[in-house]
Amino acid sequence: MEQWLKDDERLDYLLAEDLRIIQSPSVFSFSLDAVLLSRFVSVPKNKGKIVDLCSGNGVIPLFLSARTKGEIIGVELQERLYDMAVRSVRYNGLEEQITMIQGDVKEIPATLGIEKYDVVTCNPPYFLAHEMSDKNLSEHYAIARHELHLTLDQAIESASRLLKQGGKAAFVHRPGRLLDIVTSMRKHRLEPKRLRLVYPKLGKEANTLLIEGIKDGKPDLKVLPPLFVYDDNNEYTKEVSEILYGDQQ
Amino acid sequence: MEQWLKDDERLDYLLAEDLRIIQSPSVFSFSLDAVLLSRFVSVPKNKGKIVDLCSGNGVIPLFLSARTKGEIIGVELQERLYDMAVRSVRYNGLEEQITMIQGDVKEIPATLGIEKYDVVTCNPPYFLAHEMSDKNLSEHYAIARHELHLTLDQAIESASRLLKQGGKAAFVHRPGRLLDIVTSMRKHRLEPKRLRLVYPKLGKEANTLLIEGIKDGKPDLKVLPPLFVYDDNNEYTKEVSEILYGDQQ
Repeated sequence: MEQWLKDDERLDYLLAEDLRIIQSPSVFSFSLDAVLLSRFVSVPKNKGKIVDLCSGNGVIPLFLSARTKGEIIGVELQERLYDMAVRSVRYNGLEEQITMIQGDVKEIPATLGIEKYDVVTCNPPYFLAHEMSDKNLSEHYAIARHELHLTLDQAIESASRLLKQGGKAAFVHRPGRLLDIVTSMRKHRLEPKRLRLVYPKLGKEANTLLIEGIKDGKPDLKVLPPLFVYDDNNEYTKEVSEILYGDQQ
Repeated sequence: MEQWLKDDERLDYLLAEDLRIIQSPSVFSFSLDAVLLSRFVSVPKNKGKIVDLCSGNGVIPLFLSARTKGEIIGVELQERLYDMAVRSVRYNGLEEQITMIQGDVKEIPATLGIEKYDVVTCNPPYFLAHEMSDKNLSEHYAIARHELHLTLDQAIESASRLLKQGGKAAFVHRPGRLLDIVTSMRKHRLEPKRLRLVYPKLGKEANTLLIEGIKDGKPDLKVLPPLFVYDDNNEYTKEVSEILYGDQQ
């Protein structure tokens, strides 16, 4: 096992899928949001070219590999996270399907090609640069969580440039940024078509949103049923539990 | 009773409030949406100047009179509906608090005064003019339901012009128009602050949205808990039942 891991890393299960993922407490670990996005996005089952931007340790490409036979490219700026993702892909024997690229999301359409992809996913940094309250945050966390190297608008622009006409881009973010997201999506020809709000539990305000747009699509937004994370006993709801742990009946 | 009613009109209860409202099957009757909007909007309890645009038979002013001591003005284009609203206001003895005006929402800020009001509500026509599938629709229905005389953007512009800085505008509409609403609100200086989605029942897509913005407010949208209309037995949920029928324990 040690040959796969560095420093304080550990090999975690991606529970619903028969996969493992390398994580470390000292860098950004994958979140429920990434898992929800990889389940939310519409992907063709048997083919297609998919790009995941801001890929981190590769959780979305890994999850997507269980949903599609298509080709998946993950793009991550940070060397440390990129390196973990590469090793996780190899550990799971998915090198044929998943390619990790270390690069800047802003530049990546020029490298990967314009209007060549069917699906783009992105779990971008959530916080504005000026919202950095904790100055002692490690650099890995700071870059992953704050718009230091990539703004929301830049992420959406890159997604749109990668996509073919009719291709789909899906994002996860905070509800407070909903208006910025939809404004930016429309500006970059991604018409929002599916919106799902995630609520920690019944009766609480939403704390996450999932949104998918179609490049040059016709305006017609559907608001999908709400997704609740916890039930009244503070346990995962059936829906979230199945996403995380699989259908265990 | 007959002195109050014309033709095929009837006097309906506004159940949760101790009020009556004149309705007629041959013109547009008030909908659950209007009732939900009059409960959703933030109104000062003891004072304030409120305008309800596209008032129809006056359901929102009537409902709001039970929530505030403020002054309420209802604006309705159609003579027939305006006339019903005036009689309902009188029947309930609310002439001191509610004034109905027959007029065009586009022109009304010039008449009522610019930046003088604290709250504006509007349950606008939902459908685009070209969506008129039923050509035999009565004119009353057609005007109330379709953007024949008033577009969504015009309604939002009028609302904004009426409002003081810091005043609140609340709208009800279909989720498919969410992006048009928020785009138009921002264009007219109404920053969306509270969004609530209404779902017919658990597991279904939303079919109504309630949104409130503050004139010149700071960007920070909250997505309130979802509102479900029916429960699994196809009966009104407790929340909707209380809005419609009051807290009957």
